[in-house]
Amino acid sequence: MAGKLRIGVIGAGRIGKLHAENIAYFIPQAKLEGIADVMMTPDMESWAKGLGARIVTKDVSALLADKDIDAVIICSSTDTHADMVVLAAKAGKHIFCEKPVDLTVAKVNAALAAVKAAKVKMQVGFNRRFDHNFRTVREMTLAGKVGDVQMVKITSRDPAPPPATYVAVSGGIFLDMMIHDFDMARFQAGSEVVEVHATGAVLIDPAIGKAGDVDTAIVTLKFANGALGVIDNSRKAAYGYDQRVEVFGSKGCAQAENDTPSTVKLSNDEGVSGDKPMYFFLERYKTAFIDEMKAFVSAVLEGKDVPVSGEDGLRDLLVGLAAKKSLAENRSVRIDEIG
Amino acid sequence: MAGKLRIGVIGAGRIGKLHAENIAYFIPQAKLEGIADVMMTPDMESWAKGLGARIVTKDVSALLADKDIDAVIICSSTDTHADMVVLAAKAGKHIFCEKPVDLTVAKVNAALAAVKAAKVKMQVGFNRRFDHNFRTVREMTLAGKVGDVQMVKITSRDPAPPPATYVAVSGGIFLDMMIHDFDMARFQAGSEVVEVHATGAVLIDPAIGKAGDVDTAIVTLKFANGALGVIDNSRKAAYGYDQRVEVFGSKGCAQAENDTPSTVKLSNDEGVSGDKPMYFFLERYKTAFIDEMKAFVSAVLEGKDVPVSGEDGLRDLLVGLAAKKSLAENRSVRIDEIG
Amino acid sequence: MAGKLRIGVIGAGRIGKLHAENIAYFIPQAKLEGIADVMMTPDMESWAKGLGARIVTKDVSALLADKDIDAVIICSSTDTHADMVVLAAKAGKHIFCEKPVDLTVAKVNAALAAVKAAKVKMQVGFNRRFDHNFRTVREMTLAGKVGDVQMVKITSRDPAPPPATYVAVSGGIFLDMMIHDFDMARFQAGSEVVEVHATGAVLIDPAIGKAGDVDTAIVTLKFANGALGVIDNSRKAAYGYDQRVEVFGSKGCAQAENDTPSTVKLSNDEGVSGDKPMYFFLERYKTAFIDEMKAFVSAVLEGKDVPVSGEDGLRDLLVGLAAKKSLAENRSVRIDEIG
Amino acid sequence: MAGKLRIGVIGAGRIGKLHAENIAYFIPQAKLEGIADVMMTPDMESWAKGLGARIVTKDVSALLADKDIDAVIICSSTDTHADMVVLAAKAGKHIFCEKPVDLTVAKVNAALAAVKAAKVKMQVGFNRRFDHNFRTVREMTLAGKVGDVQMVKITSRDPAPPPATYVAVSGGIFLDMMIHDFDMARFQAGSEVVEVHATGAVLIDPAIGKAGDVDTAIVTLKFANGALGVIDNSRKAAYGYDQRVEVFGSKGCAQAENDTPSTVKLSNDEGVSGDKPMYFFLERYKTAFIDEMKAFVSAVLEGKDVPVSGEDGLRDLLVGLAAKKSLAENRSVRIDEIG
Repeated sequence: MAGKLRIGVIGAGRIGKLHAENIAYFIPQAKLEGIADVMMTPDMESWAKGLGARIVTKDVSALLADKDIDAVIICSSTDTHADMVVLAAKAGKHIFCEKPVDLTVAKVNAALAAVKAAKVKMQVGFNRRFDHNFRTVREMTLAGKVGDVQMVKITSRDPAPPPATYVAVSGGIFLDMMIHDFDMARFQAGSEVVEVHATGAVLIDPAIGKAGDVDTAIVTLKFANGALGVIDNSRKAAYGYDQRVEVFGSKGCAQAENDTPSTVKLSNDEGVSGDKPMYFFLERYKTAFIDEMKAFVSAVLEGKDVPVSGEDGLRDLLVGLAAKKSLAENRSVRIDEIG
Repeated sequence: MAGKLRIGVIGAGRIGKLHAENIAYFIPQAKLEGIADVMMTPDMESWAKGLGARIVTKDVSALLADKDIDAVIICSSTDTHADMVVLAAKAGKHIFCEKPVDLTVAKVNAALAAVKAAKVKMQVGFNRRFDHNFRTVREMTLAGKVGDVQMVKITSRDPAPPPATYVAVSGGIFLDMMIHDFDMARFQAGSEVVEVHATGAVLIDPAIGKAGDVDTAIVTLKFANGALGVIDNSRKAAYGYDQRVEVFGSKGCAQAENDTPSTVKLSNDEGVSGDKPMYFFLERYKTAFIDEMKAFVSAVLEGKDVPVSGEDGLRDLLVGLAAKKSLAENRSVRIDEIG
Repeated sequence: MAGKLRIGVIGAGRIGKLHAENIAYFIPQAKLEGIADVMMTPDMESWAKGLGARIVTKDVSALLADKDIDAVIICSSTDTHADMVVLAAKAGKHIFCEKPVDLTVAKVNAALAAVKAAKVKMQVGFNRRFDHNFRTVREMTLAGKVGDVQMVKITSRDPAPPPATYVAVSGGIFLDMMIHDFDMARFQAGSEVVEVHATGAVLIDPAIGKAGDVDTAIVTLKFANGALGVIDNSRKAAYGYDQRVEVFGSKGCAQAENDTPSTVKLSNDEGVSGDKPMYFFLERYKTAFIDEMKAFVSAVLEGKDVPVSGEDGLRDLLVGLAAKKSLAENRSVRIDEIG
Repeated sequence: MAGKLRIGVIGAGRIGKLHAENIAYFIPQAKLEGIADVMMTPDMESWAKGLGARIVTKDVSALLADKDIDAVIICSSTDTHADMVVLAAKAGKHIFCEKPVDLTVAKVNAALAAVKAAKVKMQVGFNRRFDHNFRTVREMTLAGKVGDVQMVKITSRDPAPPPATYVAVSGGIFLDMMIHDFDMARFQAGSEVVEVHATGAVLIDPAIGKAGDVDTAIVTLKFANGALGVIDNSRKAAYGYDQRVEVFGSKGCAQAENDTPSTVKLSNDEGVSGDKPMYFFLERYKTAFIDEMKAFVSAVLEGKDVPVSGEDGLRDLLVGLAAKKSLAENRSVRIDEIG
């Protein structure tokens, strides 16, 4: 494909806005052509035009019908993702779809089938693979610096829990939150998960428990290559967004620590103190969001494989569903029991 | 009890020697009275006399019969611990027993019963509770600095695996190695373990697998107070002895990092590098070994409770047996299923 | 001033390009109107047009004559800075001038007089004041966290020396390199330098010595408020760009450590290693360059004082000249001996 | 010399007690034979006997006359050091003398002459050379890891100032406090100081100023090998004893950070905090005090050179006197101007 990748963004909520601005400002190889949002407001419209969007509409089909759009970024509400993928694929657009594609295997399979039939590319928004720290860990592993991977350990804690009402429709902690960590674990292990065991508790907000979910969870994983994994999640870390990864292998161990706003240490009569981690995902993964989009743009323009495929999204979902089942039945669950 | 605590050491292997020297050199409130070892050699004898021991013998009963000995330190081979405890209790001696008391619940129960009947004190050698880092974490929790404990995470990796022949008689990774971490987890959580799930793999030495054990393991725990825990063990970390503890709670997170021989960082064209962790337990827990003995001595002299009781040893064993069963049956196991 | 600040850039070398791109991409309150460079090439021209510049010219006077330009960024060669300031001031443009304004007091005074007469604003490009780490240190001091400042310590080392030919015309290490640190020292101390003592040596490149300069230097400072300061410079640190600041006061000490590309630590049988510092000033001060320009734009638009004034540039120069004299005469030199 | 080194301690103040206990408990190659203190109290006597001292006396000459004493540790008041060295040398005893030998060059020279004439060994108590961190830095330099040394930077700050009355008789900050750092600088540079420039201020306690001294000082050094050095001292760091060393060379930079009581980090809503440095020299240099004594004992027993000689003490004094002169005259002072 010659020239710039011409992109339409579907859905202009928080994450849609972020992607639209990143495309407009930071990705010279792409051009923001249009923005569609069913709730388009005058404010949103003026924002969109300020970014240089040619098409600003409430009607997604107008965007999909535009022949000068090569690719779409799907950032609409989660329950519409799979349908949007199918529509976009049928319209011949390359697709970047926010995670999750869907909470059910059937709809994800249908979406992937449509993508395959249309021979378009599809990338899923697991942005953390592009984080400078986690990517460095993976590069060290690929360079042989940790030897054979034996354990992958992920700490992933949010600064504050979502409202219980959100939790109720989110698919629960494993499909909404830990799914990022399942993707990270697969990425770091370089292998597929074959078995899962989940433990969970309601320790932060009883309303989350009433909504049928847990807010604290530890999941162990077995990978096809024999390695083990463990992920811990908390919906609320008093000190902010705690995002660490450790890969342990036969030759060593690579550990990614949190990013902080500054490196400054203050020593006084109480001790030596430094910054908390970056507050939340928009701060911590600011550059990762740009880099995942650059990777998508270059994969399409250069005809390469996307770095996080629809199949990755499917496999992450299967691990999440297995974890959910494991917690419900208090036993280890094999991935091949799902779907 | 007035004056110094007069101590006899039973078993003069590596750990017996360490305790004897610590008592002789670093604990003014104690006096090393005697050393018994069934394999007493001339070298051992001259070493023992150099430490000022009055009784140096192959015959444990001579030590136990001595009226001027108040307490014994049991460091003989693991399979003799429980019997020695019974004999020492019957002789009216206070007891410090190296871990584990025994690998079976029945023998531990018998030993504890003898101790109870004799109204002597008994401390078990879980030295890590006295480590300056781990103790500081616990003190922070007790001071309310992490709030309610929600997760306890322990990383515990050895620098090199033992011979497979040792593994075969050791009781396996859960009773030989991770039992230290079960004790630490209970100590840090301030609560008893109620359920365990173990995952394991043979990734380091196939001979360990042939001996019926794993060399890499991840265990999740549920505590009576609702908190969750996770421990990972590896028999071989290329960079040495990796001993870290993290306690996460409603108000914050306390993390103990490894100790290193120096604080020096070298910056050159390859990066910024520092020391590996202290090589192994004798280096890392050097002061902890002294401090556990001081605590035992002062508990006896001042008539206080010992900080790590025989009951602690029993409970750690139960968790270890549950982990073993969990791995064998690939399911979560409740502690009350054991014994 | 209403609307966006309309900016012309004078000089499109490395730093001019950087400022032009920052204005075009990252500062919504500013608009890049024109770029002038006496060496304008077709490549430069197409780059400038790609950034949306309306005027692309070899003729600075065309830029200065344009009524729709409110401010200029002076990035031409150092020896032209002072003249450009005078011309721009006479044209009624607000001025952002790269450091140094000039290497002589007379020309700087003339430039400042022109700025004053024209009642335009002028900011000097001491970008490091905007670094996230150093700014945090200053904020801590202003918040009273270090108490009264007693010492300011600055480590500032480059990854590689410039060619000796450059050194010969640069004004030497004190006016070319350490002048940044003199500005930082004054900023952190919140006080003016009253006396300087410089020590130096040629330890890296004998050609620098032949050019009449040193490549390694340590300078001590006395501030008007009684505090002491020390700066060390090296033209070549094997591990890259070493930029650290420490402010020590009656209540504590704030230390800014280097930034690194990632937080990843690799533990293996050789030790525990991490990244070198960010390679050089373009990487380390990437955001600081944007933030200094934002501050200039907002100072002009909102009629506020600029954060780094022409007077700051003059005072930094005086300290640099005093350091040069101190080294030459091997004695302490008072600032009031200069100029 | 065969067998153990038989040692008498002269002066049982804080530091004398420390050495006596270290010899009694931690140095198997030495034997504590006697303790002399002109102020011997019953308490001191019972403490000395508890350590196994055969001779406990108010009369130093009794100790020096004892034929079964091979070496003495001089820990009497500073003004008696040089005389004690002469007496001990004449008595044929090997000598470990606390720093400083004396505050005047004449008396130090006389003491060194007596030592030379008696052909005994003499070590001066610059214990910091034996610190695990600083020794590691030196070993890295000797192993070529930093390349040619270009700069030595030392930060040395006390947790609390001494009373002004002490300051008045101490010889001042350069002879009392920074002399340790002059010794460290010479040790790390592997070269002699040839020129000194001192800056100082009274920022902590006006009474120190009235006593004719400063409480805050920065000194730059030139070494014979061309390297530069800088030392900063403060009599009061709010966060405790700050003892850091940095050696910068052509291939890299080795930095020794402070030691802390634990490695624990607490993350909460205020930030991430850790321990202050070890409180003061008794804590920080606990092992260094033992290691310097071991080195003395083994140098005498094995007929090797002592690691810190009387000549080192003399050279450190000359640097201190030059610094004092530099501050008084506000100019650079060459070492060969002194003495």
